[in-house]
This record gives sequence, C-alpha cells and structure tokens, in this order.
Amino acid sequence: MRVAVLHAPGDVRVEDRPEPTILAPTDAIIRLSATCICGSDLWPYRGTDHPDHLPMGHEYVGIVTEIGADVNNVKIGDFVVGSFFASDNTCEICQAGYQSRCVHATGLDGTQAEYARIPMADGTLVATPGQPDPELIPSLLAASDVLGTGWFAAVAAEAGPGKTVAVVGDGAVGLLGILAARELGAERIIAMSRHADRQALAREFGATDIVQERGEEGVAKIKELTGGLGAHSTIEAVGTQESMMQAIRATRAGGHVGYVGVSHDVSLDGLELFFSGVHLHGGPAPVRRFLPQLIQLIWDRKIDPGKVFDLTLPLEQAADGYQAMDERRATKVLLTV
Amino acid sequence: MRVAVLHAPGDVRVEDRPEPTILAPTDAIIRLSATCICGSDLWPYRGTDHPDHLPMGHEYVGIVTEIGADVNNVKIGDFVVGSFFASDNTCEICQAGYQSRCVHATGLDGTQAEYARIPMADGTLVATPGQPDPELIPSLLAASDVLGTGWFAAVAAEAGPGKTVAVVGDGAVGLLGILAARELGAERIIAMSRHADRQALAREFGATDIVQERGEEGVAKIKELTGGLGAHSTIEAVGTQESMMQAIRATRAGGHVGYVGVSHDVSLDGLELFFSGVHLHGGPAPVRRFLPQLIQLIWDRKIDPGKVFDLTLPLEQAADGYQAMDERRATKVLLTV
Repeated sequence: MRVAVLHAPGDVRVEDRPEPTILAPTDAIIRLSATCICGSDLWPYRGTDHPDHLPMGHEYVGIVTEIGADVNNVKIGDFVVGSFFASDNTCEICQAGYQSRCVHATGLDGTQAEYARIPMADGTLVATPGQPDPELIPSLLAASDVLGTGWFAAVAAEAGPGKTVAVVGDGAVGLLGILAARELGAERIIAMSRHADRQALAREFGATDIVQERGEEGVAKIKELTGGLGAHSTIEAVGTQESMMQAIRATRAGGHVGYVGVSHDVSLDGLELFFSGVHLHGGPAPVRRFLPQLIQLIWDRKIDPGKVFDLTLPLEQAADGYQAMDERRATKVLLTV
Repeated sequence: MRVAVLHAPGDVRVEDRPEPTILAPTDAIIRLSATCICGSDLWPYRGTDHPDHLPMGHEYVGIVTEIGADVNNVKIGDFVVGSFFASDNTCEICQAGYQSRCVHATGLDGTQAEYARIPMADGTLVATPGQPDPELIPSLLAASDVLGTGWFAAVAAEAGPGKTVAVVGDGAVGLLGILAARELGAERIIAMSRHADRQALAREFGATDIVQERGEEGVAKIKELTGGLGAHSTIEAVGTQESMMQAIRATRAGGHVGYVGVSHDVSLDGLELFFSGVHLHGGPAPVRRFLPQLIQLIWDRKIDPGKVFDLTLPLEQAADGYQAMDERRATKVLLTV
C-alpha cells in the first residue's frame, strides 16, 4: 500500500509498504477514506523532533475491512472514526474520561496511508450511524483529532455560559476551539489571530472579537476587553513558551487555561504560576471521550468543522501538503485516499 | 506597641512601634488575642527572601477596637478572624471565590504584634458568633491562614468522596490539608511524612496511610498503593521543585494537584506537565471564601485544627518560636499577645 514517510526534515515521500495485518485479536484494519496533516506533524517535518523514516499521520476515517476475534463494537463495512490514541476504554483512567492516558494507551502512526491497523478497536473506534454522505467526511475526519483536541481544550478551559474565552493560536485546533466554545455556550470568544483568512473562519465558528496583537501586547488587549481582569477561560493551541505565557497571563485569577499545543521547550516559572491563580489543565486530548457526541453533532449537520480544511490533495501529493502547511499557505490539508 | 521585626536572617526582635491607626474609612483596628508563625515566615528568616527590618506575621485573631466610618460588617468588641490577604469581597474576582487575588488585594504584614490595622475590614474580617471560649482560640487562629490554606489545597485538589488523596508536606498546612480532605469526604488519605510526631497528628486528622519515602521513591510508593495509577488528588504544601514534581508525578492522569506551598525556584517542564494530564491549581489561598464555614465548624467543635500548634509562647519570645520552627522542634508556634 501507499504511505507517506518522512525521510528527513522537509522530505516526505509516498512509498510502498506492506499492508497492515491483524496482530492481536482486538485489532481492526481499516481502509482509509481520508486522512490529513496535523500541525504536530510539522514538528518532525521541521526537524524539531527527530524522526527516522517515520510513517506519518495519526488522523483517520475509513471503512473496517477486517477485525480480530475479540472485536465486538465495530464490524466489517462500518464507517468509523477513531482517536489518534488507541485506548481500551474500560480501564479506570478511560472511565474517568482520559482515554489518551489509558493504561494501555498507544499512539497511532502511519495513517497517511491506504490502510491502518487500529489496536484495541472496541475502545478506540466509533462507528457512524450509517455510511456518511461524502460532504460529511471532512468533518468526521476532523473529529479524529483536531476537533476533538479543540473541544477538549474548551472543556479544560471550562468554556461555558457567561464566560469570556480567549483563544491563543489560529491554527486548525485553535479555530475548532472557538467552535467548541460556542457550542459550549460561551458568551464572548476572543480569537487571537493576525491572518485575515483565519480571522474570517474564526468569526464563522463563533469568535466575537479578534485581537491581532501577540505576547504582552496581546495580553494587554485581552485585559482591556475584560475590564482589566483577563479572560475566564483561555485555550492554548500552539505549545511554545510565548503562547503558554500569553495564555496564562491573559487569564484572570481563578480562571482556567486549557492547553493542547504539544509543549516544545516550555518551562513554567513556579512563582508566576502560583500568583496567577489560574487552573491549568491540558495534554494530549482524550478525543475518544467526545467522539460519540461530536459524530452526532456532525451527522445532524449542527457543526461543520470540516471547514478547517482549506486544501485537499490526493495522498500521492502528501509532500505538497506538508509544504503548503509549513509555509502557512494552508491551515489544514486533507488527503484523499 | 510590641511587634516582632526581622532585622536580618535569623534575627527576630520584639520591639516598640507606634500603634496602628485608621488610615481609610474601610479600615479596622484589632487588638490581637493570638498570632502565630507561618512556615512561609521561615523563608525570609532563612534569608531566601530578602526582608529589611520587616514587621513579621500575617495570621491573627482578635477583638475590634476601632472601625472606620464605612465599616458595617464588624463592630467594636467583635471577636474576628481574618484572612492574610485583605480583600473587598465585592469585586468580580472575590465573588468568584478568589479573594486572595481581589482587584484591591493587599497583603498583611506585622500581625505578630499587639495591634493590627486591617484594610477593607468588611471584606476581610469575619466575626465569630460570640466571644469564643479560650480553648477555641488556637483553632480560630488556624483558620486565618494555615487551615484556610490546607482547605483550599484540598478543594483545589478536588478531594472528595471516593477519592484517594496524597499529601506532600507534613507541615501545618499539609496536616490541615489532611483534615480538610477528611471533612470533604475523601475515602483514603496518604500522608507523606517521615516524622513520628507528625505522622501521629496526620492519623488523628484523618490520614489512612503513611508514606515515609520521598521523591521518586515516594512516587513509586503512591503508585503501588493506588493500583499503579497514582492518587486522584494530591495536595502540595511545600513549594520546592522536588515537592511539586513529587505531587505531579504522584497524581494520575486526569487527577488534580492543589498546590499551596509558596513556590521557590520552581520550574515546571512543559512537556512533562503536558503528558502528565493532571489538573494544576493553587496559589495564595482565598481563605476568606472558606472562613464562615471554617469558623462554624470550629465553633460547633467539629474540627480541632488548633492541634497543629505544638508550642505556645508569649509574643515577647517570638525569636524562640522562630528558632524552634526553623530547627523543626515545633510544627507551628502560637504567640499569645
């Protein structure tokens, strides 16, 4: 089968690899309908993380083609969405809603491909109510990570009625954090963005205010918009030192920061954090917790998160997709399989 | 009046200073009945923070002797307990329960004295239902900071029914965090302590298990006691790098760390925090939020937090009290005034 492989920073090639097979009785094999490139894929692409002939991708939707003997919740032919972490969904951590930290959690790699093996299929995959209309596929694919992650960030930030929510990061996760905050009933949503196209999508997803400034100026602007207090809830969707401090400083004492940008060289000063008085929660999103709800919202056409995909390419052109995202010509690239 | 002043590290002297007077119409003056030495007073005493002829102390109970024209909630003759932060208790931050970060918050210094001026008396002080029996005074004094802080830590850690709570730090705050976790209904409370006398008090306050190990060994022990998962809730009541990491690592993914030790040279690695999946909340405790409830529990003799005081001295002997706490001969020193 064809799969996108990172050979070296900046060097993605689509090449042949053997099709995956059932390794454990709890595995399923899916034929992908679509996959995509994640902002976090850019870290190894840019050489910050160090891959070595790494099959890329962890987002996926598709049709089950094979199941192990112990798989009961999905069957061959089902259209499924899954989280980017495989989880048993039965352990105490999963039951508490933290499937991404399941005691048996395992990451998924190599879903920018024609087929993928999904471990612990019963705990990882959720079947859609039927075969989806093609126009729903981008939104269902978004649920696999980027929507689920933005949703978790909004939940971690305790976005809700009466709240002012600030969103640091105007990538796909930040934009879908805005959508999530709106769905959760936030009163006011301040998007921090300096790109006209992303500002437009931010407004479409529910942003009521746009702040163009960054860093300390951005924080000052958020304070100005919130009576000097800061946001009740802040979504951090970047993962740098600057974005984390921007999020913490933009949040009022007693407020909540939900952070989902994978931290890169971030170090938090204990004393500043202490006196900030914020709640800090985040990490790899337990997407599986939200999948049934998100699939239903998409199925009922109440949300349209697929709009974050602004470039669609065939899998064979994955390299062009990476380049477009790296150069910020695209927010999020969907790869058809 | 007599007041304890820190002249230099290790050098506390009780000396004469002018009695405080009403400076703003919202001030009250109290005649202290008792005060005490806080673990955080040891930081400047040990030279970590840099005082300059600093009047010491921020914990207090006493009788109102004078009020400004705008004070309505307490009257002359009332026996009052107040928080170590003065707060208006009316701003949006106070109303959200974060009085220690009140938009007008101001710290209190110099309550190891005969009299103290309390700013924003209406928002800071809570009168007891009547004149307390003398044996209640230590417990009421504890409510002013150390109990309120331990209580906040337990609330921030979301201690409650069904939860296993680990407590890092066996000082007065940690011990009262144990008491708070018990009152909040925690199922199991693991005290991390290697001092026999503190272990005994920990058990009296509700600890069900004692872990003597510290650092990574302590974390391993907590994991061992919790099916490999870690505590649901961890109270951090020290404020060092080691204690913070011990608390974070002892907590399961999705669990809660409530940290109240004033951070000293603490730096949190973003990536480790990210993958820990914990909720982190803490800071200077909004004691005022809890005071009415804590006073009532003490008044009704349902809790006896005054037991943390294991040495009582007259104010004149404050220096001996500091020395006893510094040398860990006393957990917490009460000064009679």
